[in-house]
Amino acid sequence: MTKTEYAEQAKKALAYYDKANIVITDEEKANIEVADFGLGKVNNIGLQLVVYINTDRVCAKEMVLLPGQTCPEHIHVPTNGMEGKEETFRCRYGEVYLYVDGEGTSDGIKAKLPDSPVTVFHEVILHAGEQYTIYPGTKHWFQGGKDGAVVSEFSTHSTDETDVFTDKAIIRETKIEG
Amino acid sequence: MTKTEYAEQAKKALAYYDKANIVITDEEKANIEVADFGLGKVNNIGLQLVVYINTDRVCAKEMVLLPGQTCPEHIHVPTNGMEGKEETFRCRYGEVYLYVDGEGTSDGIKAKLPDSPVTVFHEVILHAGEQYTIYPGTKHWFQGGKDGAVVSEFSTHSTDETDVFTDKAIIRETKIEG
Repeated sequence: MTKTEYAEQAKKALAYYDKANIVITDEEKANIEVADFGLGKVNNIGLQLVVYINTDRVCAKEMVLLPGQTCPEHIHVPTNGMEGKEETFRCRYGEVYLYVDGEGTSDGIKAKLPDSPVTVFHEVILHAGEQYTIYPGTKHWFQGGKDGAVVSEFSTHSTDETDVFTDKAIIRETKIEG
Repeated sequence: MTKTEYAEQAKKALAYYDKANIVITDEEKANIEVADFGLGKVNNIGLQLVVYINTDRVCAKEMVLLPGQTCPEHIHVPTNGMEGKEETFRCRYGEVYLYVDGEGTSDGIKAKLPDSPVTVFHEVILHAGEQYTIYPGTKHWFQGGKDGAVVSEFSTHSTDETDVFTDKAIIRETKIEG
């Protein structure tokens, strides 16, 4: 991702925090994380987020999904001898299409199939005020609805770099160039 | 607290979630917790909250403090062989006056001294978008500013019933009568 692309995505995310009436500090605004998962198609496969806190025990983030943007399929595995990450997604604005291990096929799901492989299709649709908890070892992916979404994540310590993605082309750490 | 008092406090809290543009479900609205700490003066010593999630590992709450209302001084101690609770307060609306162990006296603090004993006066003032992390073993109390406050809490598992309060008259579990 180039600096210009990063700045564009960050600006879009800021507009969503505004729409959702979520106050973030100037420092947080300056440090928004834009994840393109190394695939170079951030509006299809990507995520914007502010990490509020990430200690050894607790993590909280505020994520933005643009319309139709997907956080690609992954699973949280045990890391450094600790149980895998547990996370609760709470939709604050818009609509999120979440897919987890369980009954379901790709037929008739609300999400558009993303440009990255997915294998789980148990559908959970979250509107503002609704939430879902993903326990360790559960494969999942999620996509913003037609108006995008803002989603709070409440979780154990986050080690994004150890997430196991279905798409082996993914590089979780975003590289900003130019 | 009587059922009528509970309903009045719950209604006040709902108005704050609205002001802060925080969406909660009808089920959450019907189950708002009003804590009067057994002291019978809920507008001075009290707290309203919605618990979003409280698993063995992660807890998240959305708290409402009315103007000048205080969550009384307490400390989180090890419980069931687990380290004490760690919590991050993130102010979403209004202003919170937070007092923790450390340098400071009661002279000139922004909070009004509450009708319950306090012993720590290291002042942290949080406006919307600002946050502070309280690690286990840190005494603390906090009060809503003149316009009240809505505060997100991100924490480890919550066991409110094992909090140790400075005020020995406190009973954490709210009793609703009549």
